[in-house]
Amino acid sequence: MRTLKLTLAYDGTRFVGWQRQAEGESIQGLLEAALARLEGAPVTAHGAGRTDAGVHALGQVASAGMTVAHEPATLVRALNAHLPPDIRVTAVEDVAADFHARFSASGKTYRYVLDTGAIADPFTRQYAWHLPDALDLPAMAAAAAALVGTHDFAAFQSVGTELRTTVRTLVRAEVTGAVGDRVRCEFTGDGFLRHQVRAMVGTLLEVGRGRRSPAMMATLLASGRRADAGATAPPHGLFLVAVDYD
Amino acid sequence: MRTLKLTLAYDGTRFVGWQRQAEGESIQGLLEAALARLEGAPVTAHGAGRTDAGVHALGQVASAGMTVAHEPATLVRALNAHLPPDIRVTAVEDVAADFHARFSASGKTYRYVLDTGAIADPFTRQYAWHLPDALDLPAMAAAAAALVGTHDFAAFQSVGTELRTTVRTLVRAEVTGAVGDRVRCEFTGDGFLRHQVRAMVGTLLEVGRGRRSPAMMATLLASGRRADAGATAPPHGLFLVAVDYD
Repeated sequence: MRTLKLTLAYDGTRFVGWQRQAEGESIQGLLEAALARLEGAPVTAHGAGRTDAGVHALGQVASAGMTVAHEPATLVRALNAHLPPDIRVTAVEDVAADFHARFSASGKTYRYVLDTGAIADPFTRQYAWHLPDALDLPAMAAAAAALVGTHDFAAFQSVGTELRTTVRTLVRAEVTGAVGDRVRCEFTGDGFLRHQVRAMVGTLLEVGRGRRSPAMMATLLASGRRADAGATAPPHGLFLVAVDYD
Repeated sequence: MRTLKLTLAYDGTRFVGWQRQAEGESIQGLLEAALARLEGAPVTAHGAGRTDAGVHALGQVASAGMTVAHEPATLVRALNAHLPPDIRVTAVEDVAADFHARFSASGKTYRYVLDTGAIADPFTRQYAWHLPDALDLPAMAAAAAALVGTHDFAAFQSVGTELRTTVRTLVRAEVTGAVGDRVRCEFTGDGFLRHQVRAMVGTLLEVGRGRRSPAMMATLLASGRRADAGATAPPHGLFLVAVDYD
């Protein structure tokens, strides 16, 4: 049995998300179907991040155990032949038997894209959140920087999630771009709570609109109450950019 | 009666093209419906270029006669409120009564985008033709340059088109980008025959693959036979970039 590390890019628009669901097409489901066709038997693929419906990936990583003998490059071609064009396997490599896309991951990077042009760009309507506001980007960048570090991110967690701990380490949080054009909020951390990035973006936007000060981020982290943070930004501006392994 | 010049951007993926058809949604049909809602009466919109099904526009221009009193900026907002998100009116201006989007145009620029990456980018699968070939870009650029000038472009015309003349002037034809990434073929001219840009791109690709020499372009222009030129490139890589008016 080989353990394979698969890297994927996908346009999440029409999917129910990474994870298999009772109804609708999932990226995991389609990948497993493609793997099963090559293996001649069912295959389970574990994803590094369970992206939600509408969320995209530039570098999602999945792991799977298989017995097929093909070279990695042949597997890339064969999998892409069995996958729809909105999902592409960009790389396949053989890894150690104990590799698990999710549990072995040491870090992840997410990007949230805002289209702040006066008129929404029709070509990125599913890849950026259109928000034609006069955002204060330096204030947003300062607020993002205040989130960096090891904190209890409970205030940015989806309500109803049960977890052992809501403490996570954010190593990078940047806001770049220009008002009237694209604005990118990018976050790298050891792990993220459910909807954490989208809740952080929703909160940063309140700073950008002058409704909160960057200094309020510390108070918010201390409170841990979801209701104190901003709204959850919609999924279609979010990209899982990369997953890191030490 | 005012004469309005409307500039539009649209993702042509799901449309039957610019022009109204018996079946399916057209950009012209949807724009006219939006204009009619504001006017309270039917409005005809004339487009500068009749883009085909699947062809996109960054700067299509239409003209329409209307009596509504709204400011141009108000018209932009109102029209976009009535149009689907894959069609955006980016500008409206009042122009002279004799302005006609098509007959007043002095030039047009089209861009054809190739995705020459080994694996198709899922985010541009409808906005670039994926062709993972080792193209000779300098040869393609030389062949494109040989098309510049006033020529009979009959060899690049869609078969069956009836026109008074197939002589057109191409003022710019450039191939830019990098193999393994995006390659752009951009053309500016006083007018283009039906499918001319896509036939020129199909022919340039044969040069890029080494099946034709750039020097064969002159022979092709002289022959005027469509069968002598390359295949018509698919519509989804093509963008009407801009329409010029003197």
